[in-house]
Amino acid sequence: MSRISNGMLERFPVYLNYLKSLPEDAPKNISATAIARALCMGEVNVRKDLAAISGSGKPKIGYIVSDLIDEIETNLGYKENRGTVIVGAGRLGRALLDYVGFKEYGINILAAFDNNPDACGETSSGKKIFPLSHLEEFCEEHKVQIGVITVPAVNAQNVCDYMVECGISAIWNFAPTHLNVRRNIIVQNQNIAASIAALSTHLKWK
Amino acid sequence: MSRISNGMLERFPVYLNYLKSLPEDAPKNISATAIARALCMGEVNVRKDLAAISGSGKPKIGYIVSDLIDEIETNLGYKENRGTVIVGAGRLGRALLDYVGFKEYGINILAAFDNNPDACGETSSGKKIFPLSHLEEFCEEHKVQIGVITVPAVNAQNVCDYMVECGISAIWNFAPTHLNVRRNIIVQNQNIAASIAALSTHLKWK
Repeated sequence: MSRISNGMLERFPVYLNYLKSLPEDAPKNISATAIARALCMGEVNVRKDLAAISGSGKPKIGYIVSDLIDEIETNLGYKENRGTVIVGAGRLGRALLDYVGFKEYGINILAAFDNNPDACGETSSGKKIFPLSHLEEFCEEHKVQIGVITVPAVNAQNVCDYMVECGISAIWNFAPTHLNVRRNIIVQNQNIAASIAALSTHLKWK
Repeated sequence: MSRISNGMLERFPVYLNYLKSLPEDAPKNISATAIARALCMGEVNVRKDLAAISGSGKPKIGYIVSDLIDEIETNLGYKENRGTVIVGAGRLGRALLDYVGFKEYGINILAAFDNNPDACGETSSGKKIFPLSHLEEFCEEHKVQIGVITVPAVNAQNVCDYMVECGISAIWNFAPTHLNVRRNIIVQNQNIAASIAALSTHLKWK
């Protein structure tokens, strides 16, 4: 398979959204030209991007929409089933634990962990919350790859270090703080406050 | 006051973060040159940006750090106290309702609203959740400017329209759907699923 560039990884979700938004009674085939036109993107680039991940495009016919969706999802990693845990079972942690929308992106939220015994137990949808001390054993047993941090900022680095010790290689950080990690660990920061700050600024200057 | 460009509005939070991260025993003054160097930014641009919002910079002395922080915060709108309501008092809505970190960005979360009577009442921190039918009266009385949408995607557009009717001019949308609004209404989308999708893709290609 050809090398996938970072630019492509940013454009694939755009193609995917568009393809999934097509009405059910739309034609089964679509050309790179039609996609490029609909998204106001360069035709040559779209053609190149799609050719990098799909061998199924045919001259004059184009791509079969459902196959192309499938191929893009595979290449974006949405077909994986990555074991994920949450540390911090406050409101946000519990909201994420019960959120069912992650599955379609290849993320399988298995359980949450908290060092407060009162927070442990089960959510209304039956997802389990364990004591934090069980994390290592759980990660080993379930081959957990992703950790979600929903603890206060002051505890986040410790939780992060502990996750890495437990073999977790990708971290989704909701705590409003910078995390220091080894080079091969992925951190995705979700700074909710920064978004509302941007809204505040827009309001000031609109 | 000079015109503030969009580029500036993006750079000011970066300056602000840096200035706030300085240790307490650091010198009280700082030059544009020092800021530019610390942030690997062009000195001329930093100088221009700061001059646009502050008249307090002096040759050889630079800016007084605390004054500069104050001026940047004022210009970013963080000194406002904008009345904000949340519609949708599920886990996420309640988590946001109790979150104390919004104040420092000029956002004052007043109450939440829900059309489910069981969701109405009070959170543990004493914030109120009212029936959705009270929204209009509440918005009028409290001059609410910002609405946060934490309802399911299928209800989001209706809630958005109702918020606009109630006089709300800026919307922070957590529902994974596109909202149609009049031109003078600001919408800031917060697509949580897209972030975890990006993490999935990083893991696939790292």
